[in-house]
Amino acid sequence: MKTAENLDFLFHPQTIAIAGVSEKVKQFNAGLKYLEGLMQFGFKGKVYPMNPTGGEIMGMTIYKSVKDIPDKVDFIISAIPAPYTPQLVADAAQKGVRAIHFFTSGFSEIENVEGKRLQADIMARAKAGGIRVIGPNCLGLYCPGGGLSFNADFEKVSGSVAMISQSGGNAAHCVQEGNSRGVFFSKVISMGNGADLNESDYLEYLAQDEETKIITAYIEGVRQGPRFFKALKTAAKTKPTIILKVGTSASGAEAAISHTTALAGSDQVWDGVLKQAGAIRAGSIEEMMDITLAFQHMQVPTGNKIVIIGIGGGASVLLADEFTHTGLVLPRLSDKLRQSLIELFSSEAGRIFKNPIDLNNFESPENFFKTMKTLDQSEEADLLVIHVAFDHFGLISIQEKELMIGVYLQLISQIKKEMNKPLAVILHSYSSTEMRKLALDAAKDLSAAGIAVFPSIQRAALALSKFAGYHKKHKAAVPAT
Amino acid sequence: MKTAENLDFLFHPQTIAIAGVSEKVKQFNAGLKYLEGLMQFGFKGKVYPMNPTGGEIMGMTIYKSVKDIPDKVDFIISAIPAPYTPQLVADAAQKGVRAIHFFTSGFSEIENVEGKRLQADIMARAKAGGIRVIGPNCLGLYCPGGGLSFNADFEKVSGSVAMISQSGGNAAHCVQEGNSRGVFFSKVISMGNGADLNESDYLEYLAQDEETKIITAYIEGVRQGPRFFKALKTAAKTKPTIILKVGTSASGAEAAISHTTALAGSDQVWDGVLKQAGAIRAGSIEEMMDITLAFQHMQVPTGNKIVIIGIGGGASVLLADEFTHTGLVLPRLSDKLRQSLIELFSSEAGRIFKNPIDLNNFESPENFFKTMKTLDQSEEADLLVIHVAFDHFGLISIQEKELMIGVYLQLISQIKKEMNKPLAVILHSYSSTEMRKLALDAAKDLSAAGIAVFPSIQRAALALSKFAGYHKKHKAAVPAT
Repeated sequence: MKTAENLDFLFHPQTIAIAGVSEKVKQFNAGLKYLEGLMQFGFKGKVYPMNPTGGEIMGMTIYKSVKDIPDKVDFIISAIPAPYTPQLVADAAQKGVRAIHFFTSGFSEIENVEGKRLQADIMARAKAGGIRVIGPNCLGLYCPGGGLSFNADFEKVSGSVAMISQSGGNAAHCVQEGNSRGVFFSKVISMGNGADLNESDYLEYLAQDEETKIITAYIEGVRQGPRFFKALKTAAKTKPTIILKVGTSASGAEAAISHTTALAGSDQVWDGVLKQAGAIRAGSIEEMMDITLAFQHMQVPTGNKIVIIGIGGGASVLLADEFTHTGLVLPRLSDKLRQSLIELFSSEAGRIFKNPIDLNNFESPENFFKTMKTLDQSEEADLLVIHVAFDHFGLISIQEKELMIGVYLQLISQIKKEMNKPLAVILHSYSSTEMRKLALDAAKDLSAAGIAVFPSIQRAALALSKFAGYHKKHKAAVPAT
Repeated sequence: MKTAENLDFLFHPQTIAIAGVSEKVKQFNAGLKYLEGLMQFGFKGKVYPMNPTGGEIMGMTIYKSVKDIPDKVDFIISAIPAPYTPQLVADAAQKGVRAIHFFTSGFSEIENVEGKRLQADIMARAKAGGIRVIGPNCLGLYCPGGGLSFNADFEKVSGSVAMISQSGGNAAHCVQEGNSRGVFFSKVISMGNGADLNESDYLEYLAQDEETKIITAYIEGVRQGPRFFKALKTAAKTKPTIILKVGTSASGAEAAISHTTALAGSDQVWDGVLKQAGAIRAGSIEEMMDITLAFQHMQVPTGNKIVIIGIGGGASVLLADEFTHTGLVLPRLSDKLRQSLIELFSSEAGRIFKNPIDLNNFESPENFFKTMKTLDQSEEADLLVIHVAFDHFGLISIQEKELMIGVYLQLISQIKKEMNKPLAVILHSYSSTEMRKLALDAAKDLSAAGIAVFPSIQRAALALSKFAGYHKKHKAAVPAT
């Protein structure tokens, strides 16, 4: 059996040459963006700009060819037009370059003969020269540990989440969404057409990568079905592996072909394949990041019993519907537990001591805290969810809401520290632009405190159902092996 | 046949007495909130605070009983504890009050004999005294035209959207979400337990209310099934009627009983009832407001052909999947149209001229504008959707994104003015807190320009499928009648 190829060298180059860095700053120049991006992001190795015109930029010599660079070159980022790429690969082979990432598009993904011919040409030259190719037609690599990023604004902190993406835009979304919610990455690969290294190569590698604990992937289609399936099984055995498979409609499948040449395949087949491999299927980018968030921030629950604590009778109905529809069970609380909760409060009027528990307005911080403590110590709950909808404080003004929210945010961070059970928070605002901004800031604060925060009831329900389902299956599988 | 009762008097009182206004400002006092709220909102009639202790507040006399008020009283808002309400109703009957809204909870919705007895008691007294009751256990009325609101922060501008809600919190959500997206209301009713006036009364009234063009409702359950169904049919015949029916799970149905005593009923039955009546079923609060938004801002499409213009190959696949899964059809563009679009641009590389059209980075404002113009004049599109995902400008910084966004926002507002076809914009940010705030501000600007803006692909697809489906059915129904 062929073991996975070690692709560490891709993520830790010491020297990078960038082809297609233009001095003409007035128009968008991808080469220049990569150059500036790497320097701002803090790449610790050396960077060499290239352009056939030569010259200087930011005090650096622009080299006319990779062969002119007076240093070894580990890695090339190409942002030159497709017709010039065969020469670049030929030169790189002579120079002993180990890998090229082609940002450049205009290859197999466009519907003409020339694009396909060009891709075949560069692939043949790369293979002959022992060069591994990332792309073409992609944003490339983000690896904080190696100082690599295709956007200087990405988080510099390393994490344990990896991503394989057949879309650069969607990879950028995930990284930024993850970063802003406290999810940090080990390695993110925007892989484009995958003409050489493809989804199976990356998946095999990430399955054994020690820096990666959770694997995510945005997949339009795969080239080597059986190999990918095997890699998926191996990966999912030890790491939560979350797949967003798209191109599930006829229009979507056609868009995928135009995008990265990927053949989407039947949706039913994919459902079966993912289930059999033990992977988790996400239905959208948001959902993929929501599930990842749960795995990163929440302890393994001891069981499947969820208790929700929130504000608002209408919200309780929505919570119950959404959670139940995803297959989660909200167990009925025992009379004893209900009574001990009711006794914390001055009156039952306006509150509902069922599951979800509707505390109406959280009344007092102390009583909310005691409610959480009581539930954390009860055997009737394995996983606790707090629902905070800013807009549910019905009669009060935005200023009053802001004050109240501040108190509860502090309290929730405190609760999280003292709790033994996994905790999720649904924190959202349906309402005004101002309230939504308050909610965003509040979510950021809670995320920074290591709390899994979801922006809607529906999204929390979906993510938690997959999180809880995984652990239930995983636990069931343990005695059997 | 009994015609609908004219409830105009509820929404245009000249004098309001508020029972339960406390001077003790340190703790939350609902009566005081109503008093302050009405005055800040700009209620033009007279307001009289009441409390058995008497005294003064904000320079106004606090009356010990409604009977002591030296003026006629049209309407009472009650925020006093349930045990005191029978006396209030008795006094109000003597005074000739026409309606009482009970914010007060602690009636049938709590599971004890005393709550049910109290509700029966006040209902009997109200009926004998000719008083109509709103609630109990609800936030009451929002009617900008009558100067009524249960929250001073709500929009003072009148609109044409009405709402019946069996949850005050959810009503508050809808109003604020609607307001912030350019949806304005005629009458919103948080109706609570509906002990006297119930969902059927309100629906019958709104169906013939001239100020109302679109009806929305959050329904946990109904009391008089056949009557409600008949009212629904009448309403839906002339006005888009959008219903969020919840309590569709066992847990949700139980929560609904505790919340407002509503019996939820089978979900399948509801599906059939709504379809047969010609009403539109929404699956969530967000969706209900999304559909409302489409009806308020978008012209009636001449057909069902949707063309999407956006950025990002990955996004195109997601767009195609989501739109197709909701039953919408993205027609294939003719070679002639494709060619005329391709010719607007310098190169095809990195772009996809299918449907969705992926312009990659919008290249230049002029070309984006010409693309929209070409599509607006083409018979191959009945409805145009622009997809703006801020995060899809892959390589550039937040500052550059902000600049670019500014240009495109202006452009989209300009396009909207010159277009003949209905337009929807999907404008979102998956990513950082800062980008999300940019997106919120941008959405606010576009909403103010009368553009229907949706915050995610999925939400746009769902809302537009129901909007387009309604018009298709409606058009098909015209020749038949």
